[in-house]
Amino acid sequence: MSKEIKVGVIGCGAIGRQHIARLMNTIPETRVVAVADYYQPSAQAVAEQYGITCCATGEELIARPEVEAVLVTSADPSHAGYVLECIKAGKFVFCEKPLAQTAQECEEIIRAEVAGGRRLVQVGFMRRYDRGYAAMKQAIESGEIGAPLMIHSCHRNMSQAPGFATDYAVTRVAIHEIDISRWLLDDEYATAQVLAVRQSKNTQGDWLNPQIMMLTTRSGQRIDVEVQTDGAYAYDIQCQVVGEDGTVSLPDPSAVVKRAGAACSFPIMTDWSQRFIEAYDIEFDAWAKALLNGAPDGPSAWDGYVACVTGDALILSRQTGKPEAIELMEKPSIY
Amino acid sequence: MSKEIKVGVIGCGAIGRQHIARLMNTIPETRVVAVADYYQPSAQAVAEQYGITCCATGEELIARPEVEAVLVTSADPSHAGYVLECIKAGKFVFCEKPLAQTAQECEEIIRAEVAGGRRLVQVGFMRRYDRGYAAMKQAIESGEIGAPLMIHSCHRNMSQAPGFATDYAVTRVAIHEIDISRWLLDDEYATAQVLAVRQSKNTQGDWLNPQIMMLTTRSGQRIDVEVQTDGAYAYDIQCQVVGEDGTVSLPDPSAVVKRAGAACSFPIMTDWSQRFIEAYDIEFDAWAKALLNGAPDGPSAWDGYVACVTGDALILSRQTGKPEAIELMEKPSIY
Amino acid sequence: MSKEIKVGVIGCGAIGRQHIARLMNTIPETRVVAVADYYQPSAQAVAEQYGITCCATGEELIARPEVEAVLVTSADPSHAGYVLECIKAGKFVFCEKPLAQTAQECEEIIRAEVAGGRRLVQVGFMRRYDRGYAAMKQAIESGEIGAPLMIHSCHRNMSQAPGFATDYAVTRVAIHEIDISRWLLDDEYATAQVLAVRQSKNTQGDWLNPQIMMLTTRSGQRIDVEVQTDGAYAYDIQCQVVGEDGTVSLPDPSAVVKRAGAACSFPIMTDWSQRFIEAYDIEFDAWAKALLNGAPDGPSAWDGYVACVTGDALILSRQTGKPEAIELMEKPSIY
Amino acid sequence: MSKEIKVGVIGCGAIGRQHIARLMNTIPETRVVAVADYYQPSAQAVAEQYGITCCATGEELIARPEVEAVLVTSADPSHAGYVLECIKAGKFVFCEKPLAQTAQECEEIIRAEVAGGRRLVQVGFMRRYDRGYAAMKQAIESGEIGAPLMIHSCHRNMSQAPGFATDYAVTRVAIHEIDISRWLLDDEYATAQVLAVRQSKNTQGDWLNPQIMMLTTRSGQRIDVEVQTDGAYAYDIQCQVVGEDGTVSLPDPSAVVKRAGAACSFPIMTDWSQRFIEAYDIEFDAWAKALLNGAPDGPSAWDGYVACVTGDALILSRQTGKPEAIELMEKPSIY
Repeated sequence: MSKEIKVGVIGCGAIGRQHIARLMNTIPETRVVAVADYYQPSAQAVAEQYGITCCATGEELIARPEVEAVLVTSADPSHAGYVLECIKAGKFVFCEKPLAQTAQECEEIIRAEVAGGRRLVQVGFMRRYDRGYAAMKQAIESGEIGAPLMIHSCHRNMSQAPGFATDYAVTRVAIHEIDISRWLLDDEYATAQVLAVRQSKNTQGDWLNPQIMMLTTRSGQRIDVEVQTDGAYAYDIQCQVVGEDGTVSLPDPSAVVKRAGAACSFPIMTDWSQRFIEAYDIEFDAWAKALLNGAPDGPSAWDGYVACVTGDALILSRQTGKPEAIELMEKPSIY
Repeated sequence: MSKEIKVGVIGCGAIGRQHIARLMNTIPETRVVAVADYYQPSAQAVAEQYGITCCATGEELIARPEVEAVLVTSADPSHAGYVLECIKAGKFVFCEKPLAQTAQECEEIIRAEVAGGRRLVQVGFMRRYDRGYAAMKQAIESGEIGAPLMIHSCHRNMSQAPGFATDYAVTRVAIHEIDISRWLLDDEYATAQVLAVRQSKNTQGDWLNPQIMMLTTRSGQRIDVEVQTDGAYAYDIQCQVVGEDGTVSLPDPSAVVKRAGAACSFPIMTDWSQRFIEAYDIEFDAWAKALLNGAPDGPSAWDGYVACVTGDALILSRQTGKPEAIELMEKPSIY
Repeated sequence: MSKEIKVGVIGCGAIGRQHIARLMNTIPETRVVAVADYYQPSAQAVAEQYGITCCATGEELIARPEVEAVLVTSADPSHAGYVLECIKAGKFVFCEKPLAQTAQECEEIIRAEVAGGRRLVQVGFMRRYDRGYAAMKQAIESGEIGAPLMIHSCHRNMSQAPGFATDYAVTRVAIHEIDISRWLLDDEYATAQVLAVRQSKNTQGDWLNPQIMMLTTRSGQRIDVEVQTDGAYAYDIQCQVVGEDGTVSLPDPSAVVKRAGAACSFPIMTDWSQRFIEAYDIEFDAWAKALLNGAPDGPSAWDGYVACVTGDALILSRQTGKPEAIELMEKPSIY
Repeated sequence: MSKEIKVGVIGCGAIGRQHIARLMNTIPETRVVAVADYYQPSAQAVAEQYGITCCATGEELIARPEVEAVLVTSADPSHAGYVLECIKAGKFVFCEKPLAQTAQECEEIIRAEVAGGRRLVQVGFMRRYDRGYAAMKQAIESGEIGAPLMIHSCHRNMSQAPGFATDYAVTRVAIHEIDISRWLLDDEYATAQVLAVRQSKNTQGDWLNPQIMMLTTRSGQRIDVEVQTDGAYAYDIQCQVVGEDGTVSLPDPSAVVKRAGAACSFPIMTDWSQRFIEAYDIEFDAWAKALLNGAPDGPSAWDGYVACVTGDALILSRQTGKPEAIELMEKPSIY
């Protein structure tokens, strides 16, 4: 592969354009050479802005010989199809979460990737690249808090885009805790449960908010996640891992401390994109460097699959009102 | 009643002697005039130290005419009997938690107190007098965090006395969260559940540790309590009330901040008696002042009863593995 | 002396009445038996409220045989005279700071007390009884931050009573840092200096505000004190001792932490009396216990003298614009 | 200028090589095309590593037509000469601090740059690009703390390279506070003073440590800087701006909070390069973007000059023991 990875981007929405700018201006090892979007005009606009190729379809973009790697930031339902297409074409693909809509689709992707014998897929779980979570992982692995027993976490949002629904509390919100918790604990999940709780008057629509989600791992660790999909006082992400000998907590992002009006205070961010902007830069930089070394080493199709199965179990539990078992396929050796 | 309340103390163990010193030297409105203990010698020692009466039995102490109010700090199983005796004698009684061993005993106490037509009993839930919890209560009632939806709390201990058992995680440890949570939320419980979690190698004995306890209120609020009965890094009490518009958290006790050895740190207390010593002073001072005004206004027999019923439900849930309903008798008007 | 110390109080202003209530209701070892005030009616009001003796003058109060100890909370200029009178009468006296208006008066008090051969006088530097400062002292003496090199401190006030003047920034405000700093460092001062700084538009009157005060000790330690006499955002007291191996800082008083409105905050107190109310209780309790043991062991006439000499040097430095030497008399052995 | 700025780097020491990697791999708008070093072999090593030109001298590098901008990271005494050479050649130059060894050299550079009629020079005061300082600047300019009156700051180091000397406490350490304080306050200095303080046994060599430096601005603001050149517990940078209505403080870098061993703690960095690594990236990225827009907009030769004059005044004050006036030339309009 050339020293400069030529990337094709499918999906030119807000996050897509943000990633294109990142790949163009922030990540030295990457250059975007082609774009596509279900809604042609937005692809054309981006193509003109950067003077790059505009493809009629994602399939066409994937097929173009100069495209060495593909970034999928299109609408969720289209992710799995494009990822499979990339695998068929033997091209690297970075897919924003979720990897797919169903566990079946994820398994299909895994089978296809395994058939190829090597990793091509990376899923966009950017929190693993946040300095705070990375430092927590390091502290846990150092053994200084002993064996991890529990995680207490919360994910609080101020608002959601129109068309939000109850299930999205899992598939678009808690999915981050689903991934980061098993990554921090280095174990797989055994059960998932959603617990009912008093609802907030600040909810914008007719979905359930807040929800409390509980996960257990095969070693018996228990994770609780308070999910406020909207109406919260800020975009606030909290996580504490409780070990036998101590705890480590995700730090608040560094913020200027003010003393005024008989109070001491610091601001909390209001938007996920501010909160994790540095993590995105680190994520894509690591992805590019890994590709130059031959293969992605970040979150894999397996991680996308586990997130999907776990999400299904949480949604089912919300309906059955009891904990649901999480059954995973045999883990292929390439992961 | 005389300006100085003459108190008889039943139970001269460690906590009993501590309270006697408090009533003698710290609380101006009280004077201890008589003591009793199942183990005579310890009562005699205290009686000689202060030059006060030593009674052969608690019943004798309660019967003595000069005793205006009784403090019960004897072994848990004896609490209910002494409290009933005091009610029969029409005397004020301050009973360390638990009020009784069973809900039935609590109901008997309530019926006896109601029959008398006025409050005589106060139960020793001292956390309500901790400045931190009091400030949280005030913040909640001010409305600044909106309607409370959840409480996340933890109760971590470094060790337990010999003879500890799994049930005590409820009746001697979580009982404090049982009382303080409903006091903060000003609601009654609907269900209780104990959730299994990976066990700690630091546990001193063959009991379950940690345990996670979940409570819901009639308005749907959900309380989670992480209980580490022993083996924890410190005596650490954490509590966050999550409202629709914000959260309030119990502050760490004020402690000197040190910067040394490439770290910034402050000490955490190791012992519950240090942590709540000021609360005990405030509690007994408030109790004495209330008695001088005619009746106790602190935690009542009703609160002791609810704690007992809730504890029973938690213990049952640990066996059944599912949430158990909390059914309470009709609340008498005197409470 | 009787187990219950009979105290006479000279000065029935706001702070005087507060202390009287404290000695009556909070400190078990003390009882106020007589009061006096330059303005008779306020003494009469207090005397009636408690049903105690009202004396025509402080001298008469000091002379009364039943008065075992005297508390002086009258106007500053009258302090020295009453203290001398108490020493003549061989009675214990607790004098609110300042001990006197001039170093000469202080020396006279010291000579009189030394002539009597034992300590009778305690000066009301209550900060030494604040848990935070006490913990800092302990940390320093433990050696964990090495030899102390510097103190950075600030004393910020929201307002001052009418009649305030520039010199009071030293005699009524910084006097607390003058005492606490040498107590923390366990050394005497060598020089004092006031440094000019940009003035605040929030100042209520025509005095200098803020002022920066610098002190050096005989071992070369340097203390800087930022003094905002009024117009500050809160009543905020900060102190950091910098040692060779680390620093210790005075903690903020424990306060509930709130997350709301995209900020995390805790309240800061607005009034010195809230901030140090617990220190006052501890201070008078320790004073009473010490008297029952035969003599006061808190801040002495010597400490009052050093504060006075240091204050004079600071005020002189403000006029000369340069550091002024601090010359102390030989320290008598009783201190 | 080409979209990709071709940079020549003079000085291939540790920091030089770090910057070269940064310009090559992190900053998309720059490419290093040539290097030089007083010690040929280190330049050769870097040149081979990147396959770029190795020049015999800095002058030769500056003269090469393909070199569009020069980065000077050579030994301090050589800075001024190379900067003047670049100005003569009409090339942009980024010079690590200090800009020069003497105020005279700085004035010469300013005159040369002014003669050219536009800015070519940027000085490497990277703290202006630290997110914390940037947020403080923003908070001050928002007016939320009122007019700034004071800055309390400290600069604590764990160690210094061999050959360190007392003056370096100003020219290599406090120089950062000299620049950042006037940038935060947006005012020029009036006086400078060094105050003696008790010395630390942890000092590695025979220089003065710690030192306290005081600066005043034309509007009367006062800045105190505690400088520990070495022997401190960590690399700790603290800064609080005190305004009429409140204060803002530089936050500690975000760090995982641990509770273990009866303490709550977070780590403090030990090395300036960790602490400000992100600021370096932002600094060079901003420099490159500004050059592509036609001219540098970061710290100027004027800022380098003021730092030099202020440093001279501090060093003089250390010898005279009194405040020294800071006299600046007329500020040219291009700055």
